[in-house]
Amino acid sequence: MTAKNAFYAQSGGVTAVINASACGVIETARKHSDKIANVYAGRNGIIGALTEDLIDTNQESAEDIAALKTTPSGAFGSCRYKLKSLEDNKREYERLIEVFKAHNIGYFFYNGGGDSADTCFKVSQLSEKMGFPVQAIHVPKTVDNDLPITDNCPGFGSVAKYIAVSTLEASYDVRSMAKTSTKIFVIEVMGRHAGWIAAAGALVEDYGIPVVTLFPEVEFDQAKFLAAVDAKVKEFGYCTVVVSEGCHWPDGKFLAEQGTRDDFGHAQLGGAAPVVANIIKDALGYKFHWAVADYLQRAARHLASKSDVEQAYALGEAAVNMALEGHNSIMPSVVRESSSPYKWSIGMAPLSEVANVEKMMPMEYISEDGFGITDGCKEYLYPLIQGEAYPEYDDNGMPRYVTMKGIAVPRKLADFEV
Amino acid sequence: MTAKNAFYAQSGGVTAVINASACGVIETARKHSDKIANVYAGRNGIIGALTEDLIDTNQESAEDIAALKTTPSGAFGSCRYKLKSLEDNKREYERLIEVFKAHNIGYFFYNGGGDSADTCFKVSQLSEKMGFPVQAIHVPKTVDNDLPITDNCPGFGSVAKYIAVSTLEASYDVRSMAKTSTKIFVIEVMGRHAGWIAAAGALVEDYGIPVVTLFPEVEFDQAKFLAAVDAKVKEFGYCTVVVSEGCHWPDGKFLAEQGTRDDFGHAQLGGAAPVVANIIKDALGYKFHWAVADYLQRAARHLASKSDVEQAYALGEAAVNMALEGHNSIMPSVVRESSSPYKWSIGMAPLSEVANVEKMMPMEYISEDGFGITDGCKEYLYPLIQGEAYPEYDDNGMPRYVTMKGIAVPRKLADFEV
Repeated sequence: MTAKNAFYAQSGGVTAVINASACGVIETARKHSDKIANVYAGRNGIIGALTEDLIDTNQESAEDIAALKTTPSGAFGSCRYKLKSLEDNKREYERLIEVFKAHNIGYFFYNGGGDSADTCFKVSQLSEKMGFPVQAIHVPKTVDNDLPITDNCPGFGSVAKYIAVSTLEASYDVRSMAKTSTKIFVIEVMGRHAGWIAAAGALVEDYGIPVVTLFPEVEFDQAKFLAAVDAKVKEFGYCTVVVSEGCHWPDGKFLAEQGTRDDFGHAQLGGAAPVVANIIKDALGYKFHWAVADYLQRAARHLASKSDVEQAYALGEAAVNMALEGHNSIMPSVVRESSSPYKWSIGMAPLSEVANVEKMMPMEYISEDGFGITDGCKEYLYPLIQGEAYPEYDDNGMPRYVTMKGIAVPRKLADFEV
Repeated sequence: MTAKNAFYAQSGGVTAVINASACGVIETARKHSDKIANVYAGRNGIIGALTEDLIDTNQESAEDIAALKTTPSGAFGSCRYKLKSLEDNKREYERLIEVFKAHNIGYFFYNGGGDSADTCFKVSQLSEKMGFPVQAIHVPKTVDNDLPITDNCPGFGSVAKYIAVSTLEASYDVRSMAKTSTKIFVIEVMGRHAGWIAAAGALVEDYGIPVVTLFPEVEFDQAKFLAAVDAKVKEFGYCTVVVSEGCHWPDGKFLAEQGTRDDFGHAQLGGAAPVVANIIKDALGYKFHWAVADYLQRAARHLASKSDVEQAYALGEAAVNMALEGHNSIMPSVVRESSSPYKWSIGMAPLSEVANVEKMMPMEYISEDGFGITDGCKEYLYPLIQGEAYPEYDDNGMPRYVTMKGIAVPRKLADFEV
């Protein structure tokens, strides 16, 4: 077997641990340099493949590649770009093959969520449909935790840990102040379609915090919500509200799209948190504070979950090993062996069963009143936030995050418009 | 010298390390139980003294008191309640003396910011003005970093570290996505009057991040701001904006008070971040994300600065030692001996020079264009965010934060209305 090159790309919204998967892919490939000569990383994801903008990872030092394990974001750049079907967009697939041929690429590692699994599946069929031999392996990643088959998705555990811890800390703060000041704290978290991240915030109930959680899976019922919040304030003196950005009214309109306008009549793009806080203030009069965590949550490598980091790395490593075993059109997955103690292994899922399948949060994970989570949900979540995996810090007190040199592989082809 | 009791209270907005000062006070008092029999903590600050709602800290275990060092928020409850002058409010001072007498309290430790220093100063004059012997010592605390004389205020260093690290992480995220998606990230930070916390966000410039910072000290100049942001995007492909909640227009109106209204015409209490993000979007068309850190920043014990935690503890310890040496009407302070390496010692400031003096950020710490910080500012800030001081985590993956038993000292007096 002659050594071929591998292509690796990051896709969609990045996470605190997607670079740990990149680290797993590159370090494992380097152990098999007789079979994988180089890993070419797409600059800005699949766009780098289409435009022949490939980063030569062999020019990155072993230290810098190792540091990817503790660096958040997508070190090679990511993109939101979904390939259409082969029938609708033959031009782009032909270009991919042209680039793969020009650079002797035989392995395609695509690190992303649901859309990327679909793209990866299409690339995996190039062998058969267009007669080009490429093995396409999907490396799962998404804070949305919505990929099927795998127990969870790398990136989710770290967001979950950050949101659970931050919600606990802010709730302690409100508890301190509630006697004469703030009684309501609202934190908005990511999750437009699924309440996985909001569920992590709801974990603080186990730590004595009165919390009301608003999931995208449950239509917003204002009267019931206000009653729940008021009951908590009357009992505890304060209340924390975790609201998913996907929380919506019965007509499907997001709370965040409240139609707010500024003095000039411009539509104002707001968050769900200020809307919820104002609903409480108007009806109950309680003083509030609100936070919108936004990118802080998915970039928070400083508080990554150890199990998440380990799985992100292991899945990158497994992707390369599975490719070397000759597999195509698959995704390494996390298999939960037991929850307590948490034991997991690596499985293998066919991409045909992953692409275009969205795993929602089971309704039995949401408590009967719709404002909390069940014991089953807690049993699922805690293992994913277990352990800490801190980055190193420099003498200034800042984390040592790495930036790739990012040297491009010399181009061989004509320009291509994306 | 017969053993007296001490009164300790937390005041104003709480921080990630105010409990470390409480720990310093209580652990040091316990070492001198021949002189200080018990530390009575005011439940919800000074209100606890007025209502005779005192927490018996002798009933808290040594382990729980030690755990205060790694627990954010105010473990005894805080309040926003400022005593008027002795002339205007003799009733409350007489009540304080009544409570102190009833519970044999000879020491008054007040842990707070500027307003609390003023209250503490007034209490320190009770000896002279009302003939009651009490030694009043102020323990500094405020994320606003605006107390005079002391090099910095416990609480600030940890917020600064959290904001610097979080801004760096989110900027890495935006950098990854900027090719096809988000190009602007706006983070709103605390600081209504002073830009100390915003300045911490501006530190990311040293780490290669294009950042434009909006301080309360600099009037918002929309055209100049948009030009600065656009230049960064054109050069780097993206731009991070750190905006202080106190950022305001030339007429003094806060950006956060943009006059936004919902569909029903209700005034909407928004943040400065969405306003800034929309200004950029309207003028330049760039896709944006924004975050409002709010309480997450001042409660973030999970990422406290080690030097901050050590100083918070040391100042609590020093307060007790100074009291035992017979001092009254003073505040232990941090004295910077050198910046590199950072060396500090404990000083002593007279409360007459602390009360009602606000230390602003020096204008020479702000760069000439008004959107960044100078080397002098960086030299001041880095030592304050140096080192990590992580809490312990439990088996679930959550931090071990302590909640006090909070057992009340039996009351001896009649009710009192506050």
